[in-house]
Amino acid sequence: MRLLIINPNISQSVTDLIEAEARRTVAPDTQILMATAQNGVAYIETRFEALLGGHAAAVIAGEQLGNYDAVIVAAFGDPGLLALKEVLDVPVVGLTEAALMTAAQLGQRISIIAISHRITSWYRECVEQNGLLGRLASIRHLDRPLRDAGSVQQDHAQRLLELSQLAIREDGADVLILAGAPLAGLARGLAGQLPVPVVDGVSCAVAQAQLLHRLQAGLAREGSFARPPAKPNQGLPAGLQALLTQA
Amino acid sequence: MRLLIINPNISQSVTDLIEAEARRTVAPDTQILMATAQNGVAYIETRFEALLGGHAAAVIAGEQLGNYDAVIVAAFGDPGLLALKEVLDVPVVGLTEAALMTAAQLGQRISIIAISHRITSWYRECVEQNGLLGRLASIRHLDRPLRDAGSVQQDHAQRLLELSQLAIREDGADVLILAGAPLAGLARGLAGQLPVPVVDGVSCAVAQAQLLHRLQAGLAREGSFARPPAKPNQGLPAGLQALLTQA
Amino acid sequence: MRLLIINPNISQSVTDLIEAEARRTVAPDTQILMATAQNGVAYIETRFEALLGGHAAAVIAGEQLGNYDAVIVAAFGDPGLLALKEVLDVPVVGLTEAALMTAAQLGQRISIIAISHRITSWYRECVEQNGLLGRLASIRHLDRPLRDAGSVQQDHAQRLLELSQLAIREDGADVLILAGAPLAGLARGLAGQLPVPVVDGVSCAVAQAQLLHRLQAGLAREGSFARPPAKPNQGLPAGLQALLTQA
Amino acid sequence: MRLLIINPNISQSVTDLIEAEARRTVAPDTQILMATAQNGVAYIETRFEALLGGHAAAVIAGEQLGNYDAVIVAAFGDPGLLALKEVLDVPVVGLTEAALMTAAQLGQRISIIAISHRITSWYRECVEQNGLLGRLASIRHLDRPLRDAGSVQQDHAQRLLELSQLAIREDGADVLILAGAPLAGLARGLAGQLPVPVVDGVSCAVAQAQLLHRLQAGLAREGSFARPPAKPNQGLPAGLQALLTQA
Amino acid sequence: MRLLIINPNISQSVTDLIEAEARRTVAPDTQILMATAQNGVAYIETRFEALLGGHAAAVIAGEQLGNYDAVIVAAFGDPGLLALKEVLDVPVVGLTEAALMTAAQLGQRISIIAISHRITSWYRECVEQNGLLGRLASIRHLDRPLRDAGSVQQDHAQRLLELSQLAIREDGADVLILAGAPLAGLARGLAGQLPVPVVDGVSCAVAQAQLLHRLQAGLAREGSFARPPAKPNQGLPAGLQALLTQA
Amino acid sequence: MRLLIINPNISQSVTDLIEAEARRTVAPDTQILMATAQNGVAYIETRFEALLGGHAAAVIAGEQLGNYDAVIVAAFGDPGLLALKEVLDVPVVGLTEAALMTAAQLGQRISIIAISHRITSWYRECVEQNGLLGRLASIRHLDRPLRDAGSVQQDHAQRLLELSQLAIREDGADVLILAGAPLAGLARGLAGQLPVPVVDGVSCAVAQAQLLHRLQAGLAREGSFARPPAKPNQGLPAGLQALLTQA
Repeated sequence: MRLLIINPNISQSVTDLIEAEARRTVAPDTQILMATAQNGVAYIETRFEALLGGHAAAVIAGEQLGNYDAVIVAAFGDPGLLALKEVLDVPVVGLTEAALMTAAQLGQRISIIAISHRITSWYRECVEQNGLLGRLASIRHLDRPLRDAGSVQQDHAQRLLELSQLAIREDGADVLILAGAPLAGLARGLAGQLPVPVVDGVSCAVAQAQLLHRLQAGLAREGSFARPPAKPNQGLPAGLQALLTQA
Repeated sequence: MRLLIINPNISQSVTDLIEAEARRTVAPDTQILMATAQNGVAYIETRFEALLGGHAAAVIAGEQLGNYDAVIVAAFGDPGLLALKEVLDVPVVGLTEAALMTAAQLGQRISIIAISHRITSWYRECVEQNGLLGRLASIRHLDRPLRDAGSVQQDHAQRLLELSQLAIREDGADVLILAGAPLAGLARGLAGQLPVPVVDGVSCAVAQAQLLHRLQAGLAREGSFARPPAKPNQGLPAGLQALLTQA
Repeated sequence: MRLLIINPNISQSVTDLIEAEARRTVAPDTQILMATAQNGVAYIETRFEALLGGHAAAVIAGEQLGNYDAVIVAAFGDPGLLALKEVLDVPVVGLTEAALMTAAQLGQRISIIAISHRITSWYRECVEQNGLLGRLASIRHLDRPLRDAGSVQQDHAQRLLELSQLAIREDGADVLILAGAPLAGLARGLAGQLPVPVVDGVSCAVAQAQLLHRLQAGLAREGSFARPPAKPNQGLPAGLQALLTQA
Repeated sequence: MRLLIINPNISQSVTDLIEAEARRTVAPDTQILMATAQNGVAYIETRFEALLGGHAAAVIAGEQLGNYDAVIVAAFGDPGLLALKEVLDVPVVGLTEAALMTAAQLGQRISIIAISHRITSWYRECVEQNGLLGRLASIRHLDRPLRDAGSVQQDHAQRLLELSQLAIREDGADVLILAGAPLAGLARGLAGQLPVPVVDGVSCAVAQAQLLHRLQAGLAREGSFARPPAKPNQGLPAGLQALLTQA
Repeated sequence: MRLLIINPNISQSVTDLIEAEARRTVAPDTQILMATAQNGVAYIETRFEALLGGHAAAVIAGEQLGNYDAVIVAAFGDPGLLALKEVLDVPVVGLTEAALMTAAQLGQRISIIAISHRITSWYRECVEQNGLLGRLASIRHLDRPLRDAGSVQQDHAQRLLELSQLAIREDGADVLILAGAPLAGLARGLAGQLPVPVVDGVSCAVAQAQLLHRLQAGLAREGSFARPPAKPNQGLPAGLQALLTQA
Repeated sequence: MRLLIINPNISQSVTDLIEAEARRTVAPDTQILMATAQNGVAYIETRFEALLGGHAAAVIAGEQLGNYDAVIVAAFGDPGLLALKEVLDVPVVGLTEAALMTAAQLGQRISIIAISHRITSWYRECVEQNGLLGRLASIRHLDRPLRDAGSVQQDHAQRLLELSQLAIREDGADVLILAGAPLAGLARGLAGQLPVPVVDGVSCAVAQAQLLHRLQAGLAREGSFARPPAKPNQGLPAGLQALLTQA
């Protein structure tokens, strides 16, 4: 199986974190193809940045068409995820979606630990779009400026642990999601120190993508995830053009 | 007041329909600036097409920065709407949002009449994102292929009237929204023939944009509609770059 | 356009505050007709008081029948609003409804700042009746006794500002509503001092009433806002009788 | 125990139906005091008519103050119910509320059978205000004009039975409510003919009022059902004045 | 009327508390039959313990078949309640269900006071299953270890009072439920000391069971509370076997 | 990895269907251990039957303690699932939960195809307990009596296909779940004939159980899925006793 993992922001250091965690999770027979957005911002925290990231992810998905059996959009918040599902005939997985659907099997109420205050509104809307707001116990977040997206885990380890404990004791969380690609791999590190199950988006997404690939559940030829109806288009980058004109 | 109206799809004939309805609604002292997406598809019915439309709308909003006092994203479904609200210091209005908030003052339960089956899933998600799913009585839709987005009103007048009556009598609608730019102006034509109030997105959006401009409610310097935090970006079209680097 | 603004409580000082803010907002060609409830209480904070206010508002609407093109029920909580919509052929607008539908276009999550603890339960139910509970970030309130409904703004300016800031920072509000006729005009005063958009019910209601009047969306001859079915009645004040026996 | 049953519409024939069913249900030691609205309409089907009925019911409750140990507002839709709970120190029970809370103990999903199409919107809003919309399977209704509110049961017996069966088989109802005072007593008659439990509002309200009286759960001195804060009032009928000025 | 009250946990001391409160509430012509689970745990706080308790309650209900006219499952959280309703032709009442439906007639927003932190998750799910999560103001709980389920009321009286006051003042509760059989009777004791109505599950359940018995609303022969379809079974205790093979 | 799959009903023919589908899905290094309930009914369609099945499943899980790395409760409706998660230190997966969480990654709106009318109420409640009612498009069901749980697929193939198509075209389903162990494997057979993705519970549960085992997300030592607090118990079968007294 060939798995395309798209980092929809432009930071190679974040791509590296994602790749490292993906490689810890992936099955031996899965080939990973990493890609980093060619345009956009260093880290996605808002709806506008997600619009940029979703577009950049789609361009990559189109450029690589034929080279993969499943795709991961590797930013929590899942920029462009539902759009890509319409145009691709392979499973498309998002970090939030995969983490929520995995966490939901480990506990009834879920808390998300995030890396900034600003990002929490966008995350909340993403949980709501997944239809799981009723199972969200809380979103807790770091409240100090980040020195570097690549070193969040080291810089804020103690505070992340405290936030996790507050989510459990104050908010009623049964399970935690450490959210955002900069925290990729941290769940693995904290698992022993926390009294509830904890997951991160990258490993969940890799595992769910493999699962969906193996299930071969069939393609959407009708319903709202069928390909968009054929119609004129113009002015699009080659990648996007490719997605609209598949046989 | 200068009002930028962006058609996020590439069809000049739809832009013309939008403009005609906008001019019927607009106040004498409002100047209208029309713009048509330079890239994308002929008509937006799906999430992927909305991703293209939202991106194209943002490019235009950035290119025209400084030339307008309010913006309308003139496709029902509101592609890119929340994203643009983050980066602009003027009111940004969507057709769905404006129609819903207007209709909600005319009746408790709202039905939407749409031009295709495919488009209804996207519309429903948009109503949900507006938080008004509890007030949605139904979405009814034309079920025959459209000959031309520019002549839907003439080709399907009788069926649109029947759908409206079904929404009232079967679904409990108190008020109707004729949805989608190709139906712009139809509400005006049918008003006398229908036994409940009926609105369309274009006239609602023009009226609400003028209202918001006059209220001068203040800018978002905090909260989730403040500008995205400053951070590196790369590879963006000039319009998008402009939106990220405003003083 | 002739706009009837009904203060459903008996306080002339509150009517004056409402009128002053209405005159700041209104279009030049709109004539304002103010009316104060002839019976009821000094200030509406509860469901029982709202029942009194709704009845008194309906009496006035009936007595003035034919003298207006739109009506505003000018108490936050909207006493009698849906009832009046059934019997009047002109737009009827409430402060809560208008403020919510306006605020919802300025931000995703809305906080309400209220003048007493007691009033918050009634407000919350009103938000729920509008179907927008999912977009309510919080209701914050003054917690000290009010010296005078007419001087709340001066007496509590600093605390109102603090409450607004808490709503933004603690509750995730993107936009604020300063609620209740005694706060009419305060949004205008605070706009520069708050980091998010802020609206009040009076100016929103005036603006939305004008908007609905201009749209001429059509009358409800079916659906749940059509006139009540003709049937015997007895013992009603002339104003209410007039509403039931219109041609 | 003295039980005041207020018919909030002006029809003595409906009062008689209510009384007959109440007497079939009531405990031997309960005295029933019937009262009919002195002003209002013949039958309440809409929000405006409910505003009239709620006001008329409050006047009666005030005039009879001291003469009862519990009150029933005896129209489905519960006009004025929450308002009266604020000002009275005895249990106040509504037909919809009592029927819903009783039915909810007999089945998970509830259908309501109503006597007209128009009335269904108001009923639905009342179910929503009770917070039980999630348990509503459907509202089915007679669709032919009523000859007489007093003879609905005889005139439409067969159709009421058919509607009940459709609610069970098509809508998934586990339990039925025959709604509206004109159907008072019909549940008793149909019980043997229907394959699920069936209740009506009058007998539920009488039974729940007795239950609440016996429980003596305590008075609301705080919270949103405490008496409205003391404040000036003017121009009110003696009954309403009495409610506001209790010791 | 013969009323079977099943304590689904194995503690005779809790059965005694339940019986004492039941006897304070019950009508003179009702005979009470107490039963204590023969297997299970000392006190039910979790879903697993509820599974044990529901099974044990069903065994008793089957063993006593024919000896009662109504059944109460006397643990807050209602283990096995919906299951028993399917197989019994008499009313089956749960403490949570009865307390919620009673409290909902005394106030709009309800708080529950519980005896341990652990128990709150299960209670919340039970409120949600009743469809009343929207009316739940909060669940507050004792946070110190219980010395003895039989003496909670004495040991923690002051803290229970404080929790009640916090629920009213901080959470907006209009009415309180003192939850869990170990608190049976406490509501009666605190009623005078609390400024809102307060109920407990046992007295509500007894009263509602009597009410449902008197209403004789009819049996479920269709719908989801009809008896399970006839089919082979094996290996069941005599009590359960009896429930499946009734004529 | 050792995977215990418990059929919570007593039908060996259903166990065989489950096993066959499980073996088609399972990874080469996973050992399957099948178990069939020793007591209960032939097929679970109702809440009471689920209570029996949940209890029987728990007994097996306790008897086999130490012999498995993950457990599947292999009846759609997930009897006993949340209870078992509390007492086991390994992943516990249910057919409904696993199918929903998988389907939710393949489409926004999900329809369930069920084998009887009666079973649909219980399924709907299970979807609601999973918090995904908002994503349920419909539950469609066979409406003719089943000749044999083991031959449903052959007997009703054409009707199952028709129901699937109705769910897509009438109800807006993007993805289908063929529900109930008797349909195990059918999704695989129909995949090519249906225009949307289709999954079944058994293969989803096997795949998700393997995924959760590999993620090693950590144990619940706090929160509502920690072990029940230690306390006296009595009279339990050895299996259940074992679950309560683990080190």
